[in-house]
Amino acid sequence: MVDPTLWREFGTPLVAPTGRGPLDGMTVAVKDLFDVAGYPVGAGNEQWLAEARPEAATAPAVAALLEAGAAIAGIARCDEFAYSLAGTNPHHGTPPNPIAPDRIPGGSSSGSGSAVATGAATVGLGTDTAGSIRVPASYLGLYGIRPTHGAIDRDGVLPLAPSFDTVGWLARDPDTLLAVGEVLLPAAQERPFGRVIVSDDLTAIASPPVRAAVDAGVAAWESGPGLPAIERLRLDVGGLGGWAHAFRIVQGAEAWRAHGAWIARHRDSLGADVRSRFEAASKHTRAQWIRASDEVRRIGAAIDHLLGDDLLLLPSASSPPPTREQATIGGPVIEAARAATFELTCIAGLSGRCAVSVPLPTDDGIPVGLSVIGPRGRDLDLLRLAGALTRACQPG
Amino acid sequence: MVDPTLWREFGTPLVAPTGRGPLDGMTVAVKDLFDVAGYPVGAGNEQWLAEARPEAATAPAVAALLEAGAAIAGIARCDEFAYSLAGTNPHHGTPPNPIAPDRIPGGSSSGSGSAVATGAATVGLGTDTAGSIRVPASYLGLYGIRPTHGAIDRDGVLPLAPSFDTVGWLARDPDTLLAVGEVLLPAAQERPFGRVIVSDDLTAIASPPVRAAVDAGVAAWESGPGLPAIERLRLDVGGLGGWAHAFRIVQGAEAWRAHGAWIARHRDSLGADVRSRFEAASKHTRAQWIRASDEVRRIGAAIDHLLGDDLLLLPSASSPPPTREQATIGGPVIEAARAATFELTCIAGLSGRCAVSVPLPTDDGIPVGLSVIGPRGRDLDLLRLAGALTRACQPG
Repeated sequence: MVDPTLWREFGTPLVAPTGRGPLDGMTVAVKDLFDVAGYPVGAGNEQWLAEARPEAATAPAVAALLEAGAAIAGIARCDEFAYSLAGTNPHHGTPPNPIAPDRIPGGSSSGSGSAVATGAATVGLGTDTAGSIRVPASYLGLYGIRPTHGAIDRDGVLPLAPSFDTVGWLARDPDTLLAVGEVLLPAAQERPFGRVIVSDDLTAIASPPVRAAVDAGVAAWESGPGLPAIERLRLDVGGLGGWAHAFRIVQGAEAWRAHGAWIARHRDSLGADVRSRFEAASKHTRAQWIRASDEVRRIGAAIDHLLGDDLLLLPSASSPPPTREQATIGGPVIEAARAATFELTCIAGLSGRCAVSVPLPTDDGIPVGLSVIGPRGRDLDLLRLAGALTRACQPG
Repeated sequence: MVDPTLWREFGTPLVAPTGRGPLDGMTVAVKDLFDVAGYPVGAGNEQWLAEARPEAATAPAVAALLEAGAAIAGIARCDEFAYSLAGTNPHHGTPPNPIAPDRIPGGSSSGSGSAVATGAATVGLGTDTAGSIRVPASYLGLYGIRPTHGAIDRDGVLPLAPSFDTVGWLARDPDTLLAVGEVLLPAAQERPFGRVIVSDDLTAIASPPVRAAVDAGVAAWESGPGLPAIERLRLDVGGLGGWAHAFRIVQGAEAWRAHGAWIARHRDSLGADVRSRFEAASKHTRAQWIRASDEVRRIGAAIDHLLGDDLLLLPSASSPPPTREQATIGGPVIEAARAATFELTCIAGLSGRCAVSVPLPTDDGIPVGLSVIGPRGRDLDLLRLAGALTRACQPG
């Protein structure tokens, strides 16, 4: 049965492979921001979809998957213009979270993640600007990667904020995550990583169940064979609140540059959350934008000076997935969780670094993700490490 | 004697130190883009200077040098709005190149470099967007650094293209270059570098005397004690011409965003070269800008995947400094040299990496520089390496 909240278009398959290769037999749920020849892009918004024409060409990232043997199962729903981390699209409903049915799936790559979690696709192709792969990975108990910024061709992908936009994907196991990476990512020499940093001030941002799962994950790491040793260090480079603020201004200014002209004509077509976010974005001045861009670059350089070729371990999101009811009601608790998640997810974006989210075992079975941030260009090594980490985390 | 082509303001000192420290006794030539309390910024343009008011505060980078014991010798002339690599300001004349008096000093940090080369200052503080420190270093026989993008506070520095703008400096010896770095750069753990890459297709861009000097420099490196081993590799990540093109569009679009409104009202105040560059910049569309920005990010990621923590050796400029006569006449030869230099210098900018330029011994004494590009955040290690390389290059 086709879940109407999962897909915008669906087929068996929707698009057949164009070649044979390492992804033979796999199916892909493609986020509704990617050009697929013959289909219009909807970007999670009915008005945008109504005005869109069928695309003439398929985005290179999608074409590479087809060429490597994968089929497109369907075009997956997403948050409007990818400008949310919730996955609660007011027009299309909220895609299911099969591992925790009363909870939201996370977004904005909500349908891509949900399709993988429900077994409707092998791979969820999406984008990650401020956490839009890592948050659904965390909420849905999946593996997800935000690659090095710029590493994967974004041609034919609707932009949100190009300084941070990346093409990423989700899968149920680390081997599939790696197999897709070997198709999409540039080849790179295998190298050892430096230190593995755990910063207790980052973990402290998260809620108690996340902290407990992350602590257990770190302990598993420390006992895992072949994993580099962990070092505890404070990430003391000037408040994370300021980091998130600079990120948010640049993200907003770029989102408005990309979509403002259209949004201004179609405000009423947007759900309340995304509309208010675009409205805030429209108010940034050029001077604020330039100043925040400078701040982003300074933060990125500070992270590079601090981390070099080290890895950083941190929670993927600040809490387990909120319930659908909480997400609908909103309010200060859910806003605080959202802001805290943003402080965690913005770090990879600010530094252009790659990050994988790995699901952790939890006592109550509610999903929690551990993120590993790696140096730019080390995506394939990071994906290999996700496999080793998984083996270390498996109980018994 | 004060050279009228070197300084815009000059004193003995112009601004006294505000503290004592590792730069005690040093004097700094500050490029005319930095805020210095009590002085207006001129940006190499008479009209801009006429409209400017004395600054209330000193740029943090300058203030840090004063605090560490250095005095400001004066405010050094530069190319208009830093939008040139020549150093030939039509309003103020061309600063001297003492080591090759009939040749141009390079720019846009021309006065800062020239002041160091003539002995009028210990340190030349400038900016490097597309080579504006490395080209004068190469042409004047000096050491120069373009730091990791974002590593040094650019508050109070007139922007050209924030995606590439950096605060850099020049000195006569590597120890002074390092001493300034220890004041301005974030602290970072000392680490070994990866491989040292020489790409013959990059060296081939340069003219025969540069190739000969670089080959000798590479040979000295190979025999130098304590220097990591060299590996030859083709930098085959899609034509350098395309790299330079993407850089140029983003640089132009950002320069126009920063200065277009003013330039449009004051076209006649600009010299012909910089005016025509701004005119070309004004014609880029938003779509071209977004596309080129994407291309820049993709190239940066490709460089990261290729180089990781490796170093890359390449010529700092494509030729020895052109003569003043050649620069005045212009024409296809000088344009080709300029375009080739840009292809070399854009690599650090596209990847945000740090780069030092080290002067090489040459048969005829005309200066040639060797650039070493290093990973983001490894500036201090790179400065230390410049000292080791210098000792290896010294004849005998």
